Amino acid sequence: MSRGQDLTIGIDVGGTKILAAVVDRHNRILGRAKIATPAAQGETALLAAIVGCLEEALREAHTNIEQVESIGVGCPGPLDTKAGVVLSSANLNVQHFPLGPELARVTGRPVLLENDVRMGGYGELKLGAGRDYDDLLIVFVGTGIGGCLVLDGQVRSGATGNAGEIGHTPIKPGGAKCGCGNRGCLEAYASRSAISRRIVKQIRRGQPSILRAKLAKLDQPARLKSKDIQAAFELNDPVVREAVERSAHRLGLALGGMINVLAPQRVILGGGIVEALGESYIDLVRASARRQAIADPAAVVEIVASQLGDDAGALGAALWSREHQHRHAPPASNFPVTEQPAFIEP
Amino acid sequence: MSRGQDLTIGIDVGGTKILAAVVDRHNRILGRAKIATPAAQGETALLAAIVGCLEEALREAHTNIEQVESIGVGCPGPLDTKAGVVLSSANLNVQHFPLGPELARVTGRPVLLENDVRMGGYGELKLGAGRDYDDLLIVFVGTGIGGCLVLDGQVRSGATGNAGEIGHTPIKPGGAKCGCGNRGCLEAYASRSAISRRIVKQIRRGQPSILRAKLAKLDQPARLKSKDIQAAFELNDPVVREAVERSAHRLGLALGGMINVLAPQRVILGGGIVEALGESYIDLVRASARRQAIADPAAVVEIVASQLGDDAGALGAALWSREHQHRHAPPASNFPVTEQPAFIEP
Repeated sequence: MSRGQDLTIGIDVGGTKILAAVVDRHNRILGRAKIATPAAQGETALLAAIVGCLEEALREAHTNIEQVESIGVGCPGPLDTKAGVVLSSANLNVQHFPLGPELARVTGRPVLLENDVRMGGYGELKLGAGRDYDDLLIVFVGTGIGGCLVLDGQVRSGATGNAGEIGHTPIKPGGAKCGCGNRGCLEAYASRSAISRRIVKQIRRGQPSILRAKLAKLDQPARLKSKDIQAAFELNDPVVREAVERSAHRLGLALGGMINVLAPQRVILGGGIVEALGESYIDLVRASARRQAIADPAAVVEIVASQLGDDAGALGAALWSREHQHRHAPPASNFPVTEQPAFIEP
Repeated sequence: MSRGQDLTIGIDVGGTKILAAVVDRHNRILGRAKIATPAAQGETALLAAIVGCLEEALREAHTNIEQVESIGVGCPGPLDTKAGVVLSSANLNVQHFPLGPELARVTGRPVLLENDVRMGGYGELKLGAGRDYDDLLIVFVGTGIGGCLVLDGQVRSGATGNAGEIGHTPIKPGGAKCGCGNRGCLEAYASRSAISRRIVKQIRRGQPSILRAKLAKLDQPARLKSKDIQAAFELNDPVVREAVERSAHRLGLALGGMINVLAPQRVILGGGIVEALGESYIDLVRASARRQAIADPAAVVEIVASQLGDDAGALGAALWSREHQHRHAPPASNFPVTEQPAFIEP
């Protein structure tokens, strides 16, 4: 076990699950925990769930909060990262929630809050498929589609603070309605939600599918899980194959367009759909991307799978908090450290 | 007049015209010339035309080649910029043409060859609408659509050498056929060629337009000039307005998607169509871009007109050759300087 404050905790707060990882100086995960996000229960329940997850990860690692130097949290936004505030999050059902200061108060440790997708990208950059590269486009395909842009080895936030937001690339103007209010965004065609909607639509049209029985049971049929889609895809279910191929094609086209403009060294694909469907899905994406990427005739830009899987966000957040604390220690006013750490015991 | 080798020449070689500018140390244009590109006549005619244009610019500037330190040439590609070779260019009708070495031999001056769009972007970055900015997406809308990506004050070429190639962003998969072989690229919807095709199509369908008579005379009706489109647009010709609005909308959507991912400080719009149609066109582009740019809710990314007009490419090429010569003097073997400069007199 490590001595002193040698450990960092990374927490990945998602709309469906929270992951925490206790990470040592060598970027090894000593303990991890995963719990369901209490998405409908508001701030207090969310904070308690995060703290509970963190405590479980500490127990798994056979250590305690005294050994922890800092905590990094990746969270959907928009965020005020300086103040550590979640400005709003539809998935988490919170508004102006000071998650950073609250978690710092409860744990007695400095907390850094950052965009969840960016933290996943940072994980891949430092420890995953981006390890030996400087220029990356990292795309996570899950419930939605998120992206992280890395140039010259740095995660870019850009003039808006939100660079990398690839989910709302227009792929079919006037097409499918997107959660953002526009029509025809990539996310409306290539996210898990979009694939699910397509499957439901085709089954309702009378197409035969092994998911028909499963969908009859679900009250929210558009919420098929990645593993359901995976099982049917691997069994060559025609409805699921068509839906997956269609979404992979659209994603590939969008990525081909991005390769033309950005010319990164690698495009890294991660997230639930990519984890579930694997290389045969990536092959479909790659084929469409290659055709569209006319500015890369020699195919120098690689399109590869992420390497950290579910751990990318938590690992990235842990590293981010360690590295950025050393560079820019958060002011005590933002991240109060109580004299007697008020760490909530289970 | 400047003394010594204080001047630089920038040449912008396009598919329809060649521009040359003699530029002094203060980036003032002392003389410029413009001639039609002998696009169908091969290498020798092209070289002679470039030299002729250069000589005319020198006469306009009341100077001579002795005062010139270096020559920068912006040219459509693909290029081997190191060797100064145009690998192929459909617009210029040449293959493996060693334009750099040939022009260096004829003028006795070192020549740097670079992508024409990138040189236009470099001009805007250094002397135009990008002067006080570091992160830019510069888009030229003309016969085709070209782009130049500037990040941290540097023109990026990326892993492919071709970063910035925005014309082949997919905007309507399966849609209009593009010159690149794909369908639905931005260039197939928003270039001058695309606008012209739309106008012709609508007129053939029987829509009334003041361009009907003009089109009857043209043997290549898809080659409407920007000024023809401009005149009809300003007269509120319904066919032309619809075609322009449609193309501006598509361009705006694509730019909105790029703003989401890149988050540059500014998007700069230039090229023949933008010069001709002006702010009312940019307003149309801006409106669609804003709606799509959901990652820029505060509208911090400005979409503005280029400031150098037709001179952007020649100015950029002049600056590029001056600055890069000092940094990386081209090897004598690539850019031979003859003892007695074999400068062709008119």
